[in-house]
Amino acid sequence: MRINKRLKQMDEENIFEQVSIRVNNFKKEKPSANVISLGVGDVSKPVIETVAKAMKNAVDDLTDIKTFKGYGSFYGYDFLKEAILENEYKDQNFSLDEVYISSGAKTDTTSILELFDEESKILITDVMYPIYKDGAAALSRDVEIMKVYEEDKFVAKVPKEKYDIIYICSPNNPIGIAYTKDELKAWVDYAIANDAVILYDNVYSSFVKSPNVAKSIYEIKGARSVAIEFRSFSKHASFTGVRCSYYLIPKEIKEDINYYWKKRTINRFNGADYIAQKGAEASFSKESQEELAKNVDAYLKGAKTLKEAFQRNGFKVWGGEDSPFLWIKTKDKQGSWDFFDKFLKELNIIIIPGRIFGEGGDGYFRVSALAPEEVINEAINRIDTYYKN
Amino acid sequence: MRINKRLKQMDEENIFEQVSIRVNNFKKEKPSANVISLGVGDVSKPVIETVAKAMKNAVDDLTDIKTFKGYGSFYGYDFLKEAILENEYKDQNFSLDEVYISSGAKTDTTSILELFDEESKILITDVMYPIYKDGAAALSRDVEIMKVYEEDKFVAKVPKEKYDIIYICSPNNPIGIAYTKDELKAWVDYAIANDAVILYDNVYSSFVKSPNVAKSIYEIKGARSVAIEFRSFSKHASFTGVRCSYYLIPKEIKEDINYYWKKRTINRFNGADYIAQKGAEASFSKESQEELAKNVDAYLKGAKTLKEAFQRNGFKVWGGEDSPFLWIKTKDKQGSWDFFDKFLKELNIIIIPGRIFGEGGDGYFRVSALAPEEVINEAINRIDTYYKN
Repeated sequence: MRINKRLKQMDEENIFEQVSIRVNNFKKEKPSANVISLGVGDVSKPVIETVAKAMKNAVDDLTDIKTFKGYGSFYGYDFLKEAILENEYKDQNFSLDEVYISSGAKTDTTSILELFDEESKILITDVMYPIYKDGAAALSRDVEIMKVYEEDKFVAKVPKEKYDIIYICSPNNPIGIAYTKDELKAWVDYAIANDAVILYDNVYSSFVKSPNVAKSIYEIKGARSVAIEFRSFSKHASFTGVRCSYYLIPKEIKEDINYYWKKRTINRFNGADYIAQKGAEASFSKESQEELAKNVDAYLKGAKTLKEAFQRNGFKVWGGEDSPFLWIKTKDKQGSWDFFDKFLKELNIIIIPGRIFGEGGDGYFRVSALAPEEVINEAINRIDTYYKN
Repeated sequence: MRINKRLKQMDEENIFEQVSIRVNNFKKEKPSANVISLGVGDVSKPVIETVAKAMKNAVDDLTDIKTFKGYGSFYGYDFLKEAILENEYKDQNFSLDEVYISSGAKTDTTSILELFDEESKILITDVMYPIYKDGAAALSRDVEIMKVYEEDKFVAKVPKEKYDIIYICSPNNPIGIAYTKDELKAWVDYAIANDAVILYDNVYSSFVKSPNVAKSIYEIKGARSVAIEFRSFSKHASFTGVRCSYYLIPKEIKEDINYYWKKRTINRFNGADYIAQKGAEASFSKESQEELAKNVDAYLKGAKTLKEAFQRNGFKVWGGEDSPFLWIKTKDKQGSWDFFDKFLKELNIIIIPGRIFGEGGDGYFRVSALAPEEVINEAINRIDTYYKN
């Protein structure tokens, strides 16, 4: 018995765990320090009452065999698929069997590789959410890496070479910017010309506000023939602990792609939790939508005030307009782990070193506005004091 | 872009879906028929109140940011791991980080292959739960198939050849018998001698009653150095729609196996649903255990009466003592799909054709006692009437 060598090759430095190790070491050294975090990608708003009520009703359904739900929902319940199409893809005319309900976009965005030929040429960018690379490795897939550059606002430009599978994350984690419709159109055209598929990680869709940014890739002409779009209830409905996600595989992509994915899924997955699906459905009620929109506005307000704070203290900042994340250049060309240590030790603020997101991330760091308002305000005070603004 | 050729190679006939297609066609032909099912592997007892109450409390936890649970539980919460070790593995001295909580054993039993070298020689038996083969195919792994025979009660004998990974399902689906301690010992010894790993699918563990059968493979000497055991709350707590499972990777297997699996899992999975984990924990309370034991006894009573009914009508039957399943030989050497059609059309009873579980299953069928008591009694009446007993 031998261990998958690709697991052994995974970059040791390139993991979020390093952050907690360093934070814990610092807390041991200096227990009196009041460490606050702008690092987390987790939400700071709880599950709302209307959604909770629906989940408790769903639990009750399970206690009576007449309303019990068990096996059989491999691709998700129609009630949730209908709510998704009605609320998120109105006028797009997708059919229910183009929608798949699942238990988390982290798993979905890499498990989808099981659909494609093992020799497929997969393109990811550097910087990039590291899960695509390491998830692909766990699934024995090689990836090719294309650098993105500060002068392009870290947006990936279509290459000359032919790739079969392209990962695009928009609104982007870690950069915090969303691809404009024109930028996305270039990729859709590339995919059409190259018989490629775009794996479009769109889990931050509810943060999209800019008029030149698409909320869904399917707003781009031709995208239905080349794009699989992934979304999640994690940020939308504070489901980071509940686990519910979805994705669309349009029939236009290839005649048989939906058929083979169903075949794969029935062999690999026994459906998403019924309780979570009922909660997710309730997140689309009029009352829920209004409340959840306020949450997004609060996160975006936090992103805006954080961005202004870093900018007035001389930092170069990207993102925070269609996303809760800011991507910030370190000062004095400091490496991102050194800068992380400085922020931890001198300001007692946890940030995420850009190096985690690839080699190109060294010299940058990520800040999250998903933190509670009081944490954001305290962080801003410390930054203003430290940098004298 | 090309589709994974292994998905194209999957056996079309070899799927449960064929059952529903034929049943639906028959119902259209003869809408007046009162079709009942002994086919389902789903439970017919609902979630019990003590478990439901814990899940509703968990929902409430999520509505307050002070008790909210989000990201971070990649391997499961300690409260559930502790309950599992205390109740299911008492005196075994496993540590919490040898236990992994997940969202369903169907996914777990094949996803575990991501841990092992792509060239590993994987052994499955024919007959066998078909997910192992088709799940491995989706994960681009080749499997080798070893026949099991009626004269061995369909128990797999250790081979002369060397394999790296061995799938054993006990209590077995579809055969309905459990490996005895001696039979299991032979496999543990084989694995030790061949540096192999046993993937022990033990999801029906709560049905084990026979004194010569192990409830867990870790009761067998040496098993901790070679076996990964998979279990589920699906049958134990009627969680087929809730989704919660667990498995153990003992540190004795190989020094680094746990380390690499954690590395893989943090990149592929964001943890199991908090609500499900709280419900699973509550299934171990004294009150719950008593109630759930009654469910198991009721299922086993159904299996016993069904077994007797088939036997008095001249059928050869295996299983049903440590499992809710019966494995039955067709009459007159009929193929299993033909016999399925006969039972559907003449007795209006759905059974599962053995062919679904491999070529060696042709000529047999599987019957499930997870059906409601009234369905089992009605089925027995029809069988007695048809076969004149």
